[in-house]
Amino acid sequence: MKKLLLFALTITMLTASTFADEAKFRHAVFFKFKEDATEAQVKVIETAFIALAGKIDTITDFEWGTSESIEGLNDEFTHCFFVTFKDKAGLEAYIPHPDHKKFVELLKPSLDKVFVFDYTAH
Amino acid sequence: MKKLLLFALTITMLTASTFADEAKFRHAVFFKFKEDATEAQVKVIETAFIALAGKIDTITDFEWGTSESIEGLNDEFTHCFFVTFKDKAGLEAYIPHPDHKKFVELLKPSLDKVFVFDYTAH
Repeated sequence: MKKLLLFALTITMLTASTFADEAKFRHAVFFKFKEDATEAQVKVIETAFIALAGKIDTITDFEWGTSESIEGLNDEFTHCFFVTFKDKAGLEAYIPHPDHKKFVELLKPSLDKVFVFDYTAH
Repeated sequence: MKKLLLFALTITMLTASTFADEAKFRHAVFFKFKEDATEAQVKVIETAFIALAGKIDTITDFEWGTSESIEGLNDEFTHCFFVTFKDKAGLEAYIPHPDHKKFVELLKPSLDKVFVFDYTAH
């Protein structure tokens, strides 16, 4: 029983420390698509970016969403993909990665403009 | 001992569910300051935004960082403040909040441009 208790406490501590100690380098990517990009094309790009996050092992976290602006300060951007790496080296490995390059080629014909902001989370 | 074990397991489960179930509405804010904004003025604004996060109770998470761009797609923006609410109503309560308004007044004279993107995290 003592062993089980120790085990449970260890799991508790590990769970807590996983979230507390994780270093976070953020790569926030925003897209505005061309006027003539179809809904189907945009859906393909969304799906491809989500799939990309599963292919590149330096990505530690990933989320995305579409604009729900209240103040109208989103400069017509409609999509955010928020990619997390352990550190900047993770992003440096991602940019030239063949799967990332393939994604960029898929994206380009439908893309009007892009904004990217990288930072270490404080 | 059984009670202690149950207690430890409950804590484990609670810790895990806190992170798994938390709804997240993101308010990503980017600034570029005026050329003549001094380092001291920028520091005051950074400190005020961090303090603001502690004053408004609909904010559930907050982080910030400065640009470490690799690709140069950050359109001259230098600062990101990444504010999380439980839901959109949290942001709606924040925007007209007197402390937020006070912060905007402090910010304005030094601000060149702002970009804000709001989304529900998927």
